[in-house]
Amino acid sequence: MKTTRLEAFSDGVIAIIITIMVLEMKAPHGESIEALMPIFPVFLNYVLSFIYIGIYWNNHHHLFHTTEKVSGAILWANLHLLFWLSLFPFATAWMGENHFASVPTAAYGVVLLMAAIAYWVLQRTIITSEGRGSVLKLALGSDWKGKTSPLLYGIGIAASFWSHWLAQGVYVLVALLWLVPDRRIERTIQQREN
Amino acid sequence: MKTTRLEAFSDGVIAIIITIMVLEMKAPHGESIEALMPIFPVFLNYVLSFIYIGIYWNNHHHLFHTTEKVSGAILWANLHLLFWLSLFPFATAWMGENHFASVPTAAYGVVLLMAAIAYWVLQRTIITSEGRGSVLKLALGSDWKGKTSPLLYGIGIAASFWSHWLAQGVYVLVALLWLVPDRRIERTIQQREN
Amino acid sequence: MKTTRLEAFSDGVIAIIITIMVLEMKAPHGESIEALMPIFPVFLNYVLSFIYIGIYWNNHHHLFHTTEKVSGAILWANLHLLFWLSLFPFATAWMGENHFASVPTAAYGVVLLMAAIAYWVLQRTIITSEGRGSVLKLALGSDWKGKTSPLLYGIGIAASFWSHWLAQGVYVLVALLWLVPDRRIERTIQQREN
Amino acid sequence: MKTTRLEAFSDGVIAIIITIMVLEMKAPHGESIEALMPIFPVFLNYVLSFIYIGIYWNNHHHLFHTTEKVSGAILWANLHLLFWLSLFPFATAWMGENHFASVPTAAYGVVLLMAAIAYWVLQRTIITSEGRGSVLKLALGSDWKGKTSPLLYGIGIAASFWSHWLAQGVYVLVALLWLVPDRRIERTIQQREN
Repeated sequence: MKTTRLEAFSDGVIAIIITIMVLEMKAPHGESIEALMPIFPVFLNYVLSFIYIGIYWNNHHHLFHTTEKVSGAILWANLHLLFWLSLFPFATAWMGENHFASVPTAAYGVVLLMAAIAYWVLQRTIITSEGRGSVLKLALGSDWKGKTSPLLYGIGIAASFWSHWLAQGVYVLVALLWLVPDRRIERTIQQREN
Repeated sequence: MKTTRLEAFSDGVIAIIITIMVLEMKAPHGESIEALMPIFPVFLNYVLSFIYIGIYWNNHHHLFHTTEKVSGAILWANLHLLFWLSLFPFATAWMGENHFASVPTAAYGVVLLMAAIAYWVLQRTIITSEGRGSVLKLALGSDWKGKTSPLLYGIGIAASFWSHWLAQGVYVLVALLWLVPDRRIERTIQQREN
Repeated sequence: MKTTRLEAFSDGVIAIIITIMVLEMKAPHGESIEALMPIFPVFLNYVLSFIYIGIYWNNHHHLFHTTEKVSGAILWANLHLLFWLSLFPFATAWMGENHFASVPTAAYGVVLLMAAIAYWVLQRTIITSEGRGSVLKLALGSDWKGKTSPLLYGIGIAASFWSHWLAQGVYVLVALLWLVPDRRIERTIQQREN
Repeated sequence: MKTTRLEAFSDGVIAIIITIMVLEMKAPHGESIEALMPIFPVFLNYVLSFIYIGIYWNNHHHLFHTTEKVSGAILWANLHLLFWLSLFPFATAWMGENHFASVPTAAYGVVLLMAAIAYWVLQRTIITSEGRGSVLKLALGSDWKGKTSPLLYGIGIAASFWSHWLAQGVYVLVALLWLVPDRRIERTIQQREN
């Protein structure tokens, strides 16, 4: 299977997740501004999840930028990542409906953590498949973001039982870390081409 | 990232928004023609939102017609636009369920306004990225539609507290303004090619 | 805009309609075979709608097979068709929920009729845009299917107030008429190429 | 119609099915870990359905790898397969809501069986269309997986009236059989190219 096929399919799934998630925000029952107020924190949370899915979409492309052939292992590692991404709307809705209670806030962190692990597994699978002199491995370098994020998610999950604000803060922090697109890969490719 | 990727992803998201929006129109509970009547204004409103999304899809293509490389800034400006577009179904549903009450009608206008601003930001980001002699900047010219629309949305939002018919009228007016596809860009490109 | 863009977008919308429609079939509340029975006619109706959307998807491709450039008029004629197609799930659900009562059965016929008219308008728009010696016009020939279908839908709509079985029978009949894919266009193209 | 069109459309439909299915998992009402417990078996079932759709997506590509032209028969055989695949969310939801009662568990097996039959029909249609010396026929060889699966689904359906655990076990077993991607086709193609 060619990489373009896998990318098109992943794009389709991610487009559905990112859109449906926002569509799931239910219209409030009243018609006043007060009726909108309670969904405001929920709205902010949808913005955060939207940004997270956007980050994954962005980095997903960088990941497959150097890959040419898709093995069965890469295919399933990719489906595994898409599975966890497709749980974002579920986790976002559950947390929103329960006004950011401890367990749902922790569950949101667990989904973030699992997606990060799935992304890491996908990365390793591609590097293994590329073999020695893997461009992706070179490009990633120390991959400090990839290593720090799971740790931060873990802190966020633990913090959610103490203060949901702190947990949310950690989740926002990791998103900000990643918002800077992964230039390492682009840079390495450009260097190689020179 | 190539422009085609970003366009395909945006097409996917816009296809989902435009389709799901219509699918969200709930079948009435009765089986008589009278049961259909109350959803008729809602139906008309879905038609308006459908046309708006169609306009954005159409103009989105013109926008990227001249763009070749997608920077991180363009990517996020595009996701920002998609975010506001994906709020159309929410705003349409809330307004319809409340029989075009003041606040939901104003909220619909706010979503229209935010999408227009997001579109403008995306336009500026592309022009900045293209640098001097930007084809898009040339093509847009005075961009009177882009400048007038936010003003008209503002008037619509204000009017919704006075008469929802007037507000709706303004929203329809702006849609009509844009229904004429943005020929400036096509024209400029053709002139350049000659 | 290139034809491939418009086709890809239309494919996306049609894929969503055909899938969501089936997904909207709600799981029954009981766990016995008896609980499945009442949704059996509804199920058959979803099959019919699925086939109709499949027919439109199939013929949509034949339509754009000969088209190279997409004008603004074609673009909006296409969106107009997609709008009516996206009402299929609504019409199917309303008819199914009301056990094929007269008005919903007629409404289903109206959506079928409007989609047929929208298809005809799209066809005319493409032929006009192609100008003299339009390949599509040649390929369509007498277009007896296109001319008979609206008439039959009209009969179906009228019949639904007398017997919903008869109306359903007419809707099934038209689907069967079209299930034979539109070979005229393929044949004409092949003849031209020889 | 070119194969790429049919593949892109099928990819779109499969992407929607696989994503919506997970999105349909409703957020529990409570905010405690106990509230999550009852949806755990449902969650596992969604994982199984996700894997099944993933298998079909994977094998679907192998199927069309050797096909160049799409006839009307192939097109409808493909839509027939997509129809049964789009019933996976329905069957998964019904089984989950009824805590794996006999009839819903059997119904899930029937959908699995019908999808397997539809896949087999699609395979036969492609082989017939390719005529003598069909690469696909060569590649499939004895097709023992394709022949064993329907039998196993039949056993699963029968077993569901006796023990839903046994039925589930059979369904998981068939998934595991197929998780190994269909290397026969790839191998045959490579041999031919050498």
